[in-house]
Amino acid sequence: MLIVMRPDATAQDIERVNDEIRRRGWQPHAISGGTRTAIGITGNPGAVEPEPFRVLPGVADAVPVSQPFKLVSREVKPDDTTIQLGNLVLGGKTIHIMAGPCSVESHEQIIGTAKAVKKSGATMLRGGAFKPRTSPYEFQGLKGDGLALLAEARKETGLRVITEAKDTATLAAVAEVTDIIQIGARNMQNFSLLEAAGELRKPIMLKRGLSASIKELLMAAEYIVARGNTQVILCERGIRTFETMTRNTFDLNAIPMLKALSHLPVWADPSHAVGVRKAVPAMMRAAIAAGADGLIVEVHPDPPRAKSDGAQSLDFSEFDKVMAEVRAVAGALGRDVARLE
Amino acid sequence: MLIVMRPDATAQDIERVNDEIRRRGWQPHAISGGTRTAIGITGNPGAVEPEPFRVLPGVADAVPVSQPFKLVSREVKPDDTTIQLGNLVLGGKTIHIMAGPCSVESHEQIIGTAKAVKKSGATMLRGGAFKPRTSPYEFQGLKGDGLALLAEARKETGLRVITEAKDTATLAAVAEVTDIIQIGARNMQNFSLLEAAGELRKPIMLKRGLSASIKELLMAAEYIVARGNTQVILCERGIRTFETMTRNTFDLNAIPMLKALSHLPVWADPSHAVGVRKAVPAMMRAAIAAGADGLIVEVHPDPPRAKSDGAQSLDFSEFDKVMAEVRAVAGALGRDVARLE
Amino acid sequence: MLIVMRPDATAQDIERVNDEIRRRGWQPHAISGGTRTAIGITGNPGAVEPEPFRVLPGVADAVPVSQPFKLVSREVKPDDTTIQLGNLVLGGKTIHIMAGPCSVESHEQIIGTAKAVKKSGATMLRGGAFKPRTSPYEFQGLKGDGLALLAEARKETGLRVITEAKDTATLAAVAEVTDIIQIGARNMQNFSLLEAAGELRKPIMLKRGLSASIKELLMAAEYIVARGNTQVILCERGIRTFETMTRNTFDLNAIPMLKALSHLPVWADPSHAVGVRKAVPAMMRAAIAAGADGLIVEVHPDPPRAKSDGAQSLDFSEFDKVMAEVRAVAGALGRDVARLE
Amino acid sequence: MLIVMRPDATAQDIERVNDEIRRRGWQPHAISGGTRTAIGITGNPGAVEPEPFRVLPGVADAVPVSQPFKLVSREVKPDDTTIQLGNLVLGGKTIHIMAGPCSVESHEQIIGTAKAVKKSGATMLRGGAFKPRTSPYEFQGLKGDGLALLAEARKETGLRVITEAKDTATLAAVAEVTDIIQIGARNMQNFSLLEAAGELRKPIMLKRGLSASIKELLMAAEYIVARGNTQVILCERGIRTFETMTRNTFDLNAIPMLKALSHLPVWADPSHAVGVRKAVPAMMRAAIAAGADGLIVEVHPDPPRAKSDGAQSLDFSEFDKVMAEVRAVAGALGRDVARLE
Repeated sequence: MLIVMRPDATAQDIERVNDEIRRRGWQPHAISGGTRTAIGITGNPGAVEPEPFRVLPGVADAVPVSQPFKLVSREVKPDDTTIQLGNLVLGGKTIHIMAGPCSVESHEQIIGTAKAVKKSGATMLRGGAFKPRTSPYEFQGLKGDGLALLAEARKETGLRVITEAKDTATLAAVAEVTDIIQIGARNMQNFSLLEAAGELRKPIMLKRGLSASIKELLMAAEYIVARGNTQVILCERGIRTFETMTRNTFDLNAIPMLKALSHLPVWADPSHAVGVRKAVPAMMRAAIAAGADGLIVEVHPDPPRAKSDGAQSLDFSEFDKVMAEVRAVAGALGRDVARLE
Repeated sequence: MLIVMRPDATAQDIERVNDEIRRRGWQPHAISGGTRTAIGITGNPGAVEPEPFRVLPGVADAVPVSQPFKLVSREVKPDDTTIQLGNLVLGGKTIHIMAGPCSVESHEQIIGTAKAVKKSGATMLRGGAFKPRTSPYEFQGLKGDGLALLAEARKETGLRVITEAKDTATLAAVAEVTDIIQIGARNMQNFSLLEAAGELRKPIMLKRGLSASIKELLMAAEYIVARGNTQVILCERGIRTFETMTRNTFDLNAIPMLKALSHLPVWADPSHAVGVRKAVPAMMRAAIAAGADGLIVEVHPDPPRAKSDGAQSLDFSEFDKVMAEVRAVAGALGRDVARLE
Repeated sequence: MLIVMRPDATAQDIERVNDEIRRRGWQPHAISGGTRTAIGITGNPGAVEPEPFRVLPGVADAVPVSQPFKLVSREVKPDDTTIQLGNLVLGGKTIHIMAGPCSVESHEQIIGTAKAVKKSGATMLRGGAFKPRTSPYEFQGLKGDGLALLAEARKETGLRVITEAKDTATLAAVAEVTDIIQIGARNMQNFSLLEAAGELRKPIMLKRGLSASIKELLMAAEYIVARGNTQVILCERGIRTFETMTRNTFDLNAIPMLKALSHLPVWADPSHAVGVRKAVPAMMRAAIAAGADGLIVEVHPDPPRAKSDGAQSLDFSEFDKVMAEVRAVAGALGRDVARLE
Repeated sequence: MLIVMRPDATAQDIERVNDEIRRRGWQPHAISGGTRTAIGITGNPGAVEPEPFRVLPGVADAVPVSQPFKLVSREVKPDDTTIQLGNLVLGGKTIHIMAGPCSVESHEQIIGTAKAVKKSGATMLRGGAFKPRTSPYEFQGLKGDGLALLAEARKETGLRVITEAKDTATLAAVAEVTDIIQIGARNMQNFSLLEAAGELRKPIMLKRGLSASIKELLMAAEYIVARGNTQVILCERGIRTFETMTRNTFDLNAIPMLKALSHLPVWADPSHAVGVRKAVPAMMRAAIAAGADGLIVEVHPDPPRAKSDGAQSLDFSEFDKVMAEVRAVAGALGRDVARLE
C-alpha cells in the first residue's frame, strides 16, 4: 500500500497517517517529492484495506500494491494443482473435455448424449438437474430425478459427471452423486455457498461471474480453499459487455492471466461464452490454443428441441467434428486430449 | 415473437417453423417481403422463448416483441404499489430516507448514528449485521449481535430498520428483527433466496446486481411477487462499467425507466453507486430529482475508522447538510420528505 | 510512480530500476518491506509513463500516483473558468440551457424551434449541420445551408448558437458561424481535430466519448487547452454499457467528479444519455441537481417526423413543462437559470 | 422492421402507422394477436429507421429485423475477398503475420526489427510514424521521417509495410509509402477519414473501436466500400470492459462472427487486445485457432526502452518462439503461414 498525500497536505496530516499505520503495528516510510509526499507501508501481514486511509485529511489516494489473494496464488504455491478422479488427472498436461446437455431432460436424452460424447472423446458428462433461470416461468430442471439419470449415465458409460449445485439446500444431494460440483456464474459471490463448498472434500468447478473481475474470481476461489477444499477448477465462461451480437464476451485473456497468477486448473466454457452455435467450434479451438486445461461444452441430440440453451448447443456430428480439431490443436502445442477406452 | 427467415429459406423451412408454432397450440402469421419472409406468432399465453426457433433451418433470427415480466409490470397493475410500515407509507408522494453505517460495529456506534440520522430527517436506520465480503479475510459483521443492536436502536429512536439477509440460512433470523429485508446486489439472482423471500409477508428491498439489466432486475422481483409477497422495493445501486474513478456507475436512467415499467417503489443507493464520499451528496440530490421514492445512504460517526465502506460514508454534519438540499429538491418537485417527530 | 518489485527480485534487478530512474534525471527511493521492495520516484517534472518500468526484470508492477492532466486541473487553477458570450456568462452560478433539433432540416423547422425554446427559457440554439452518422446511407445534414439557417435563427431570436464540427475540413466554416463549436463523442480522441480546435479562440464544447473514462475526457480537453484555447466546456452525454433498454448509460457521477477535478464548466446532454423521450425530463432535472452548469437538449416541432433522433426529442410543450421543473430544482439549490428577454 | 403496438392502441393509432408506412411507398401487414397488434413492413429498399415509428401514438416498439450493412455482407457477396500485394495474397487459406514496433524510433531499431521478424516468418512490417496518443505530452511519432524509414526497411528486406494514417491531412503522405493503410481504433467512426480512405485504391486495415459493436465495425467498413475501395481488412483489437487486469478484453468471438457475416479478411491484434507481454503468445495462438486470417503483433528489440507500448511488445526471441507455435496451430487446422524467402 502506498499512501499518496495531496500537494497541500500539512505536516500534521502526514503525521496522522503515520500514526494510523503505527497504530496497526506497521511501519510508515515517507518519500518526499517536489510537490507531494507519499508514504509506503511495511510490516503488514496481508493486504491492507485502502479505505481507512483514503478518508484521512490530506490523503489524495491509497494505492494497493499487492494482490489480496494468497492460498490460490502461484506465489504461495508455484506448482500446478491437479485433481485426481480415479485414473483421470485434471489440470496436468492432458486436456479433458466435459460435454452434455444444458439440462437433463429424459433418460433417452441423457444416455444417448453420454454415449455420443464419449465416442467423440469426452471424459466427463455435464447436465443440469437444478437449473437457475432468469425467469420464474422457465423450466427449472428435473431436480432429484435429474441427478439419478446422471448417475445412471455414468454407470453405463464410465464417464465422470459434473452438475451444478444452485444453493446450500441442495448441495449435499448434488455432492452425493456428482464427481465435480459446479458453482454457477450467478453464484460466484454467493459466499454462503462458497463456504459450504469449502467444507466438502470434493472438486469444485467455480465459474466466473458475468461481471466478476479476474481478481474477484480468485478471491471467490480463496473462500473455498481457505476452508480446506483445495480442489478447485476456475472456469472462464464469458463476461457481460456492450456487445449484443453474442450472448457474452469470451474473455480468453483470462486464461493466460489465471494460469500465471494461480496454480489452479483453468477451464473454459465456449458455449455460454459466445452463445451462438455456429461460433462454438471456433471458440473451443481458441480456448485450447490459449492454454485451457479443459473445456465444458453443451451438446444435445436435437438442439432445436432443447428445453434450454438450444441456440448454443452442438449436435452430435458437430461435436464429433470439432473434437478432431481440438485434438489437432492440442497436439500441435504438445498436449494431448484424454479419452476413455 | 417474430421469426425472421433467411433470404434463402425454402418453403419447407417456412412450413417447419409454422409446424413448430402450431405444435405449441399457437398461430403462425407469415409476412412475405421482397427478399425474405417473417412469421408472427399469436395465441401464446406468455413470453415465447426465442431459442427453439433460432436453431431451425432457414431461420435468421427470432425477435421477442413483448416483455417477459408480468406481475411487477404496470401493464398488469397500473397503480403504484405502496408499502405500509405502521404509520409510514413508502412508495407514495412522500419520500423516505434510510441512513446508517455499512456495518453495525458497536452499541455506541449504532445508537449514536440512529439518533443523528433521525435528527437530520431519516425515518429508517440501515446497518449490516451479516456482511457479504469479496475477501474471506475481511470483517464479516457482528451477525446475531448486530441484529440485537438494530432492534435496540429502533426501540430507542422509533426509526424503522432495514438490514441485509445474505442467505436462506439467516433469512428467518433477519426477518424476525428487521422491518424491511434487503437482498443485496450479489444475491439479485440467488433464486433460492428470492423464492424464500417470496414466501415471507415482509417487505423486501431488492438491489440491482452489478451487471444486471433493468429487465433482469424486474424478473428477479417477479420471482418474489410470484410467490405471493407483493411488497418489493426496487433499488438502483450502480452498475459495473469501464469507468474506474468511481466505485460503480450510477444508472439514474433506470429510475424513470423502472417507474414507467413497474408499479413497485423505486429506491436509490448513492453511496454504493458512486463510492466516493465527496460525490455522494450530489448523487442524493440527483436521485430525488430523477424521481426516486427514497434513498438509502451510508452514514458513520467517524468514516476514517469505519470497518467497511468508510470511503463512501458521510459523517453526521455532511448528512445533515445534504438532507436540507434533498428536502429543497423534493419540495421543488411537489414531493415531501417524511420525518419522525 | 511507485515501482513494486517481485518477492524474488534480486539486488541487481533493484539496481537496474534505480539506474533507469537516475538515467532520466530523477531520484529513486527504495522502501524495503518484509517480502518485497518498492521504489518511489521524485524529481520528475510530470507524469511518469509506467510501461518502461513494468517490463524491467524483477518488476511486479508500476503504479502511477498522480494524474496526467495539468492545465485543466483544479490543482493548477482552483477558480472556476467562465465563458463570456456577449452578456451571457457560462460556467458560473447561472445555468444555461441549449435546445434545438438534432439536425437542422428546414427554415420553418429551425426558426420555429428557436422561437419556441427561447420562449420556454433556453438561451442557446443547438442544431446539427454536419452530421456524423453510423451508416453511410443515413441523412448527413444540410451542411453549409444548415449553418446559414442557424445564423438566421440567431438573428431573428437573439439566441446564441452551438453546432458540431465533424472534421478539420469543415472546422473553419463552422467556427465562422457558430458561437460555440461542439466536438462530438466519436471525435473526442480525434487528436488532429482537438489540436485544430486548440488553435482557435472560440469556445469548444467537448463531449465525452462513448467509452472514454473521465480521465481521458480531461486529457482530451488538455489537448485543446495546451494549444492556448482555454474556453472549453466538458459535456457528459452517456457511456456505453451492457444496459440496452436505454441508448446509453448517463454517468451522472461524472458531474461532481469533473467539478472536483477541473475548473472547466460541466454540461450534460440528457437526450443522448438516455435516448428515450419519456425519460429525458427526469434526466434533465437530475443533471441540474447533480451540479451541471448547463444542459443541451434535443427539441423538435414534430419528433415522429424528425430526420434523426426523433425517439429522444421533446416536443415544444414537453420542453416548456420540464423547463419549469428545471428552474424549480435550480432555485432550490441556490442557482438560477438564464433567460433572454 | 416490425412495429409492435401497445395493448391499448386504438384503431386510429394502427391506421396512423399504416399511413406512415404507405407514405414511404411500402406495404404494412397487420398481425392481430390476443392482446396486441404487430405490423410488418415489406417493399422497403434497405434498412428501415425505427425511430420515426417508435414515437407514434400507440406504438410500444419498432424492432429492426435485418442488418443495416450491405456491400460488406456475405449475403451480398458470398465469396471471400482477397487482397493481392504483389505475390502475396491476404484473406485466403494462407495466414500472414505483420510484426514490428509500436512506433518507428530510429534507423537501427526499424531495420533491425524488420530483419528479425522476417527471419521468424513475418511477411509484413508494422510501425507507427504518426501516433495518436491519449496525452498531448507523450511521444507523437517521427512522422515523415518515420515513413521514410519504413520505406527503407521494405527495400532492404522485401517485407510489405503497414502504418497508420491518423487524419485526412496526412493520409496522402501515408498512402504514398505504405502497402496497407491502418485506420486506428479511435478513428473507426471518423467518417471523414473513412470517406477519404474509400476514395483511395489501396488496402485499408480498419481496427475495431474500443466500444464499437461488431455491427458498427461492419458499418464503418461499409463507408469505405461504398466509395469504391473494396480492399478492406477488419481487425479485432480488444474492447473496453470492466476488467482492468488486462489493457482491453480480446473479443475473439468477433472472429467467427465477422467471418460468418462478411466476406472481408479478418485480422487480430493480440498485443493491444491483452496489453500484457507474457499473455501475448497465448492470444496469438488463440486468434489463429479462432480462424483469423492474420495477426498484427508488436515486436521491439528492447521492450523496456520502447518509446511506446513496451509493456506489450515481444522481443525477438519471444516472437521467434511463438511463431513456431502459430505455424503448428495453423497447420493443425489445415492452413499455412506465409513466409518470404
